[in-house]
Amino acid sequence: MKIAVLPGDGIGTEIVAEAVKVLNTLDLKFEMETALVGGAAYDAYGHPLPEATLKLAMDSDAVLFGAVGDWKYDKLDRPLRPEQAILGLRKNMGLFANFRPAICYEQLVGASSLKPELIAGLDILIIRELTGDIYFGQPRGRRVATDGHFPGAEEAFDTMRYSKPEIERIAHVAFQAARKRNKRLTSVDKANVLETFQLWKDVVTEVGQQYPDVALDHMYVDNAAMQLVKEPKRFDVVVTGNMFGDILSDEASMLTGSIGMLPSASLNTKNQGLYEPSHGSAPDIAGKGIANPLATILSAAMMLRFSLNQEEAAQRIEAAVQKVLAQGLRTGDIYSEGTTKVSTREMGDAVVKAL
Amino acid sequence: MKIAVLPGDGIGTEIVAEAVKVLNTLDLKFEMETALVGGAAYDAYGHPLPEATLKLAMDSDAVLFGAVGDWKYDKLDRPLRPEQAILGLRKNMGLFANFRPAICYEQLVGASSLKPELIAGLDILIIRELTGDIYFGQPRGRRVATDGHFPGAEEAFDTMRYSKPEIERIAHVAFQAARKRNKRLTSVDKANVLETFQLWKDVVTEVGQQYPDVALDHMYVDNAAMQLVKEPKRFDVVVTGNMFGDILSDEASMLTGSIGMLPSASLNTKNQGLYEPSHGSAPDIAGKGIANPLATILSAAMMLRFSLNQEEAAQRIEAAVQKVLAQGLRTGDIYSEGTTKVSTREMGDAVVKAL
Ligand SMILES: CC(C)[C@H](C(=O)O)[C@@H](O)C(=O)O
Ligand SMILES: CC(C)[C@H](C(=O)O)[C@@H](O)C(=O)O
Repeated sequence: MKIAVLPGDGIGTEIVAEAVKVLNTLDLKFEMETALVGGAAYDAYGHPLPEATLKLAMDSDAVLFGAVGDWKYDKLDRPLRPEQAILGLRKNMGLFANFRPAICYEQLVGASSLKPELIAGLDILIIRELTGDIYFGQPRGRRVATDGHFPGAEEAFDTMRYSKPEIERIAHVAFQAARKRNKRLTSVDKANVLETFQLWKDVVTEVGQQYPDVALDHMYVDNAAMQLVKEPKRFDVVVTGNMFGDILSDEASMLTGSIGMLPSASLNTKNQGLYEPSHGSAPDIAGKGIANPLATILSAAMMLRFSLNQEEAAQRIEAAVQKVLAQGLRTGDIYSEGTTKVSTREMGDAVVKAL
Repeated sequence: MKIAVLPGDGIGTEIVAEAVKVLNTLDLKFEMETALVGGAAYDAYGHPLPEATLKLAMDSDAVLFGAVGDWKYDKLDRPLRPEQAILGLRKNMGLFANFRPAICYEQLVGASSLKPELIAGLDILIIRELTGDIYFGQPRGRRVATDGHFPGAEEAFDTMRYSKPEIERIAHVAFQAARKRNKRLTSVDKANVLETFQLWKDVVTEVGQQYPDVALDHMYVDNAAMQLVKEPKRFDVVVTGNMFGDILSDEASMLTGSIGMLPSASLNTKNQGLYEPSHGSAPDIAGKGIANPLATILSAAMMLRFSLNQEEAAQRIEAAVQKVLAQGLRTGDIYSEGTTKVSTREMGDAVVKAL
């Protein structure tokens, strides 16, 4: 079981260190190799995703990823910015299926912006297609407009696109996930405006005929953004494209108020995967030892489940996280009166102990 | 002052009737003409935006619009569906600037999903570009993929695009609106992924140099979707493209919990405008006389302000709405214990009386 460990920037190194510690506590043998990615790689090698880092990732069963990005790289040309590393990994590894759970932990209900009764018990799984859509569609660029409102003016453009088999494979992933849960799947589109999402809707509907046990409904993306706020618990599994998924999965995770707890997994057809917390690199608190490592530790659990076929170990980690929460241990982001504030390392140690 | 009255479908006729009643109470002379639009127009003429309706709208100073759409038209080809009427009006009238306030009325704080302290006093203005972006970009359609993940497969595609002058004109609208408010403008983009929104960001920054008194910041759309949930009051004016604006304005209005109160305005370069409630046609409660007419009545106030140059009358209507809320009158959607539930017509009558 070979794991590429890519801590990245900001709090990335601190939180990944705790996840590695947790993995090393398990009775399993991993081969782990660490490499630079993002701004850290740019600083060392002049590129956010050096060849060697990409090769390491491609040759591993799974990638444990921290986070990338820092304001200091904002002025770089786009291809050199830290975020390009994550886009490059997704594309080169073919990580088309992104799993983003939005779970509200019982003990953390109070951290949410939403009223407790609306959020307690929330357990949504957002499945975002991750290698298609307007993220990678060609052509894109700048040119002189030849039509539209201002012919002759400078314009920029991008191409949104999905092919039928791309939609089919993510739809199968989503129906199968729904089957293992509450058997309800909401497909989010904008078929009333976009050709791409009319095809999306048609294909998801068609694939759905193979899953008569799963209740499928369709929702426009603007309505989905509203319903997430109004009645988040109406959702079970949500499947959508890359762009809408980017927006809705972040909205959904913030609903819980505890984004520091939320893991994610991105898989390809061979179940090779990249695992990272849902939150970012938080340069403002980097190096202070106060970041919450639990989202990364829970990402490691997802890695054990999806890519390394170690369901039992995954469950042990998840139970250990529940235990430290029950013990009242909290990093600053989820702290509330009456609980015990701990550092990044103390939180990692507590999970190790609970194991 | 010529007003085209387009009630549309569902609750549209009921709510527009109340707004017309309110307008007729004012000491002003309007020429009002009513026409069918949306599903109602399709039923009568086979098209959601008949030539005569479009001509009436184009020849008027303002359009007072109800809502369009009903499940029964879902199976029609896209060009015949009710929503095409609103897209056609925007395009043909050149309504590029959409104003969507998200205001939380003091008396209705409890209707929100959010905790009262996070939402009380909310007053955001979202300015959405409405005639460009992927909504109208060409080419679009279906074809056989020649590259990408599945060459040879059927694919659908759309084109996102913005030209520099399109971005400039909406940026000016937004900076000027911010100037009249708290002088803070957030431009929402996805410049880390999209060429279109890198240009957006560049141009908004450039236009900003003409407004040194307005504090401009930039936010990625996924982060904006999160910050709206986490800390909505951090926003003053938000400006963004057509697609992101569709999603974020709906999210923001649902945060208030009282979308039945929220008006909208869509303007062209000549201040000709279309005014409609932020909510939809609600076919499930159509014909029952229970819909909330206040969003439409407040849209009529925006119409007086922006297109008819009657600021005083606009303020009178807004004050009258405040008054009926203070009297404790509520339609079902905003009803809470201790208030008086009224019908659509009773609410309209109360506003007339308050005038
Ligand atoms: C960093 C950025 C390119 C990325 C995305 O838009 O996909 C991020 O927002 C995410 O969701 O992982
Ligand atoms: C009906 C639909 C085409 C429309 C849009 O997407 O613009 C609606 O959602 C809106 O926001 O007015």
